[in-house]
Amino acid sequence: MTAQVPHFQEELDQLKARLLEMGGLAEDRVRSSVRAIVERDHGLVQQVLDGDGPINQFHMDIDSRCVKLLALHQPMAVDLRMIMSAIKINTDLERVGDLAVNIAEAATRYLAHPPVKELIDIPRMADIAQRMLRDALDAFVRRDTALAQHVLDEDDALDALKTQVFRELLTYMLQDPQTIEPSLDLILVSRHLERIGDHATNVAEDVIFMVSARDVRHHAH
Amino acid sequence: MTAQVPHFQEELDQLKARLLEMGGLAEDRVRSSVRAIVERDHGLVQQVLDGDGPINQFHMDIDSRCVKLLALHQPMAVDLRMIMSAIKINTDLERVGDLAVNIAEAATRYLAHPPVKELIDIPRMADIAQRMLRDALDAFVRRDTALAQHVLDEDDALDALKTQVFRELLTYMLQDPQTIEPSLDLILVSRHLERIGDHATNVAEDVIFMVSARDVRHHAH
Repeated sequence: MTAQVPHFQEELDQLKARLLEMGGLAEDRVRSSVRAIVERDHGLVQQVLDGDGPINQFHMDIDSRCVKLLALHQPMAVDLRMIMSAIKINTDLERVGDLAVNIAEAATRYLAHPPVKELIDIPRMADIAQRMLRDALDAFVRRDTALAQHVLDEDDALDALKTQVFRELLTYMLQDPQTIEPSLDLILVSRHLERIGDHATNVAEDVIFMVSARDVRHHAH
Repeated sequence: MTAQVPHFQEELDQLKARLLEMGGLAEDRVRSSVRAIVERDHGLVQQVLDGDGPINQFHMDIDSRCVKLLALHQPMAVDLRMIMSAIKINTDLERVGDLAVNIAEAATRYLAHPPVKELIDIPRMADIAQRMLRDALDAFVRRDTALAQHVLDEDDALDALKTQVFRELLTYMLQDPQTIEPSLDLILVSRHLERIGDHATNVAEDVIFMVSARDVRHHAH
């Protein structure tokens, strides 16, 4: 049985590498979906709409790796918590991929109208959400709880921007009914970006749970 | 070791019972949040806003039951897949609880304005979403893939209602700027209900995976 131990560690490393790759892909898709809106690039919108396949492949592959690791190696303690975290992170990343599609769907409708305003806060929200996701995955791989905590703190900035976007667009809508439809789609985009931040937050909480076996969700004692 | 087998089955049954209880609680909170809007009941809104504690307790308790079951019993095949499903379903139910809070937050803002219209489609969406959730959990406990498939089919009805709500409210907003703010909140409520349906769909997909070891997500072959 001892010969299996390095094999097991190797498979855990592969699992982490796959999650990082998947995270990079999810991040790219979020970036493209928002860039498509800012640059009014219909081709890029279509690319995002059509490009969900690779993330879905990762999703199924990672899930089946986790089942195999649990079934064949029956890991304990920190390794077990790591695999449980991987199962959850996999779900979160798949949803981030779905949210990129949702943003692209809103973009399709948004680009059918003249621009409402110069977009500043939405790309800023996208930058924060992407960084949160990247940091959360780095924290996972490096078992870095300080970085995970930093991700949790960043969520407030995203929330503040979401509120600001909402208020500003509401002003436009009240002044000019022509802006109602496109403004609604920008509000939806900001909500999708907020949810991407929520998924990064989930990953960060899983990291803290994995490393410290401490449940920081729901401010438990 | 054979003496542990009935003990293990008993613990699995307890895990299922806890998930059902948590699901019932989540469903109640969704029902209350929508009833609070329809009946313009500020007290009920506040109850939903303040009442997240029990679901969060379930969330942590079920997660730690899953860790213990995996660590102590090292289950194989169908039991392993059942516990993996429980880990995911637990996450889905906790998010449904969060969405009830989001609906109550929108309700707080919505009730500050006169009613936009008689609400018909939103309570209908809530009924469908709650039924999907209940059916998905029943399918989980009974290992009923036909019922799980039924849940997947129901998601289309929810999606159609969401689009209808959006179009109708847009008409109101374009006709009367006074309705813009409250209409926005109703649109958000309909999106939250759609997401509750998405979580029920996730649970149903997990059930099919658990029973048949077949991955129906992403229409895999």
